[in-house]
Amino acid sequence: MNEFWRVKSFNYDSIVVMEEMCHMSLKGKDIISIRDLTRNEIEHIMEVAVTMEPLMKTGSKILGGKILACLFFEPSTRTRLSFESAMDRLGGSCIGISEPRTSSIEKGESLEDTIRVVENYADAIVLRHPSEEAIRLAAECASIPVINGGSGAEEHPTQTILDLYTMKREMGKIDGLNIALLGDLKYGRTVHSLACALAHYYVNLYLVSPEPLAMPRQIIKEISGRIHVIETCDIEEIIPKVNILYVTRIQKERFTNLNDYERVKGAYRLTLQAIINAKKDMIIMHPLPRIDEISPEIDDSPHARYFKEVWYGVAARMALLSLIFGTIE
Amino acid sequence: MNEFWRVKSFNYDSIVVMEEMCHMSLKGKDIISIRDLTRNEIEHIMEVAVTMEPLMKTGSKILGGKILACLFFEPSTRTRLSFESAMDRLGGSCIGISEPRTSSIEKGESLEDTIRVVENYADAIVLRHPSEEAIRLAAECASIPVINGGSGAEEHPTQTILDLYTMKREMGKIDGLNIALLGDLKYGRTVHSLACALAHYYVNLYLVSPEPLAMPRQIIKEISGRIHVIETCDIEEIIPKVNILYVTRIQKERFTNLNDYERVKGAYRLTLQAIINAKKDMIIMHPLPRIDEISPEIDDSPHARYFKEVWYGVAARMALLSLIFGTIE
Amino acid sequence: MNEFWRVKSFNYDSIVVMEEMCHMSLKGKDIISIRDLTRNEIEHIMEVAVTMEPLMKTGSKILGGKILACLFFEPSTRTRLSFESAMDRLGGSCIGISEPRTSSIEKGESLEDTIRVVENYADAIVLRHPSEEAIRLAAECASIPVINGGSGAEEHPTQTILDLYTMKREMGKIDGLNIALLGDLKYGRTVHSLACALAHYYVNLYLVSPEPLAMPRQIIKEISGRIHVIETCDIEEIIPKVNILYVTRIQKERFTNLNDYERVKGAYRLTLQAIINAKKDMIIMHPLPRIDEISPEIDDSPHARYFKEVWYGVAARMALLSLIFGTIE
Repeated sequence: MNEFWRVKSFNYDSIVVMEEMCHMSLKGKDIISIRDLTRNEIEHIMEVAVTMEPLMKTGSKILGGKILACLFFEPSTRTRLSFESAMDRLGGSCIGISEPRTSSIEKGESLEDTIRVVENYADAIVLRHPSEEAIRLAAECASIPVINGGSGAEEHPTQTILDLYTMKREMGKIDGLNIALLGDLKYGRTVHSLACALAHYYVNLYLVSPEPLAMPRQIIKEISGRIHVIETCDIEEIIPKVNILYVTRIQKERFTNLNDYERVKGAYRLTLQAIINAKKDMIIMHPLPRIDEISPEIDDSPHARYFKEVWYGVAARMALLSLIFGTIE
Repeated sequence: MNEFWRVKSFNYDSIVVMEEMCHMSLKGKDIISIRDLTRNEIEHIMEVAVTMEPLMKTGSKILGGKILACLFFEPSTRTRLSFESAMDRLGGSCIGISEPRTSSIEKGESLEDTIRVVENYADAIVLRHPSEEAIRLAAECASIPVINGGSGAEEHPTQTILDLYTMKREMGKIDGLNIALLGDLKYGRTVHSLACALAHYYVNLYLVSPEPLAMPRQIIKEISGRIHVIETCDIEEIIPKVNILYVTRIQKERFTNLNDYERVKGAYRLTLQAIINAKKDMIIMHPLPRIDEISPEIDDSPHARYFKEVWYGVAARMALLSLIFGTIE
Repeated sequence: MNEFWRVKSFNYDSIVVMEEMCHMSLKGKDIISIRDLTRNEIEHIMEVAVTMEPLMKTGSKILGGKILACLFFEPSTRTRLSFESAMDRLGGSCIGISEPRTSSIEKGESLEDTIRVVENYADAIVLRHPSEEAIRLAAECASIPVINGGSGAEEHPTQTILDLYTMKREMGKIDGLNIALLGDLKYGRTVHSLACALAHYYVNLYLVSPEPLAMPRQIIKEISGRIHVIETCDIEEIIPKVNILYVTRIQKERFTNLNDYERVKGAYRLTLQAIINAKKDMIIMHPLPRIDEISPEIDDSPHARYFKEVWYGVAARMALLSLIFGTIE
């Protein structure tokens, strides 16, 4: 492990980064996959997010007159409300549909046509859709920026930005950290996007899951050349090592054998007892909603950050929106 | 009756009230039950409401940058729209869910978790929920104020504030009035909250209902030590006596015997003929929606105030919100 | 045809129009049917709409503090979003219901009562309802302006205003044009309103439909005394003649014989091949949603205007709202 760091960690030259960023603009850019963003772009969004935090209390007029269309073809509470809150805090406004049933979609209109209509009503679109393919298609035919608000089991790039932002704000840095992704790594879209994004950083990434819910091979392949990846089923062993424990839900319906599920569920449930050997400043994150994979007794422990994450999420989305609208460079 | 007034009515010392109010602040306060508010607090909200009325025409920026989250786990039109209108008139904005079906609630998230998420998106929460217990729990775990937007058959405190405000504005005062609550006093949440609030005032309270729909005993017990309460089934007798007739709907499904329902329904239906002996300035109120318990012929009579009540409701909610947000002292 | 123009077309005296308009105000006016608007009023809305177009980019505060209530008792995406976008661009806000299921309507409240409640929350109402009768009734009992947002198969006046505005902006004028309405002219509410409105102009109106879907006789009767109306089933013949082709959808469920439907559907489907003999500057319009009556290959041709129409729609609604609210004269 020491050797790993000796090879990979070097003094990251922030001056070079700043210079590169001068030539970089997110204005008008689509955000479909976290893979579309460079490390510099992600860092820039996070730097702007810091300046947004005070505006969450005071409000502002940065996006006055701007309209965000929220098109959710799959259910959502937190993502939709988070974007709406971000727009409201910046003086902009939101329109949208959250019920495909009550819209023209029911009359058989194609997604392309819906997008070409809605682009006349707004300055950017957040689109949640079962298929990433569809979201990419929407971005291609739209003349305004399209942001992926969650595509099936595949991607959720703005969740990843807020995950990274939470790490950065809570730990002061991401480089050099030991980070564990825990739970259902096969079907969870947030961990797929997050693993790819963490490959931009100098981290040790622990992938901790029951075998049938392991991270897909192609993602392992994509990231393992760039960061140190350790796959394991053993939670107990990794708890003392990690700085960040990123927990996801294990869903019953993924198991054919109910006994397997019950055994796994018990083993992956976080309790105060289970994290007794954790580093003092280890933090626990979770994309939410949480069912019972984290015991409520942890909520008030100094490790819990999953609700704070929601707060960082608004700042991160305020930053992303301001940059995409071009109001902030 | 005269004796009653000789004992109870005295010159209410407004100077003392004003002094007490200087030490009183509603900033950050939860509004779960009307019982949580003192007479002074209610009076203060009503005083502020008067100053809000002109802003309903002109708009204002008093709550610019503030966000109200409206979480309605039971259907609502008027309460939700009234809060949204109040926020919009004050320059604030609203986010929310009105369809639990399309939200994370469906995924099995607890109410506490939902609240701890939403508190990051907004500055206050209006919550409608079948159980008052749940709303109180939500208020306890929230770091921002929680307002009860109607809890099952129990409470609807902001409706009560607007009911009182309508009385005050239309009659010039509440002390000294004869007020009748009419209809279903057993299951109607608005009359429960209202009866408790009226116990702060020097009123004669007539409770007029069919016997099976009488006011619950514990509420009678709670208020009868403080104000004069007269229970009766006889509408005709009380009509000439009262200054205010507060009508509620009698629902068919409350009766096991359909004949009983039909008889009661006929007897409790207000028509112009039924109120022919009313005082000239008697006013009729109703929390709405009205089905057929008030004949439409009354709508244009000088007695009708049930639609004006809706208008006062916006001013009352504007006042409450401004006070809770601390923008007005 | 030449003779027709010799008789009807004369130099329209714009000075007279301007003078008439000085005495005309739309402030507080209900917009139930396009028949309620004079040519002068329509022209005035369109003139104001031109001044609104730049505000679609910059935003404005023209309707700051104003609230529009959107009550949709039938599904809608584009009309609702278009009005919301228009209000947001002008600094106003929207409240509303799009799901009658979750509202008091379910509790049996009458439409009149709903309107008398909602008028206290807003400054104007957009109402979509199956029956024009109901919308007219709503307008009568409301103290604030009511705008028809689409009434069953009958009327959709704001769609007509935007249709006319698209024609005016794209062709520079409406007088003197050859305009074809194509498709289902029997059940389509947009073509009924549009035909009536075009009777204010000096146009040749081609009504092109399969026989069972011909324009209702009473509309023909209403307009044929004022403009030249030509009914035909032959698309091919009219394509080279017209300046504007206004296409509507032909719905399967209108046919008892499926073979009839298939034959008609094929004949009325627009392709690049089908419009090969069109005038070079002929434009194709469509109220949307489009299913397959216009081949997507036309979307990128210089003839397509159906998505641009959506854009003009926001400007037209901004103008209408500003005039009705009295913020612009």
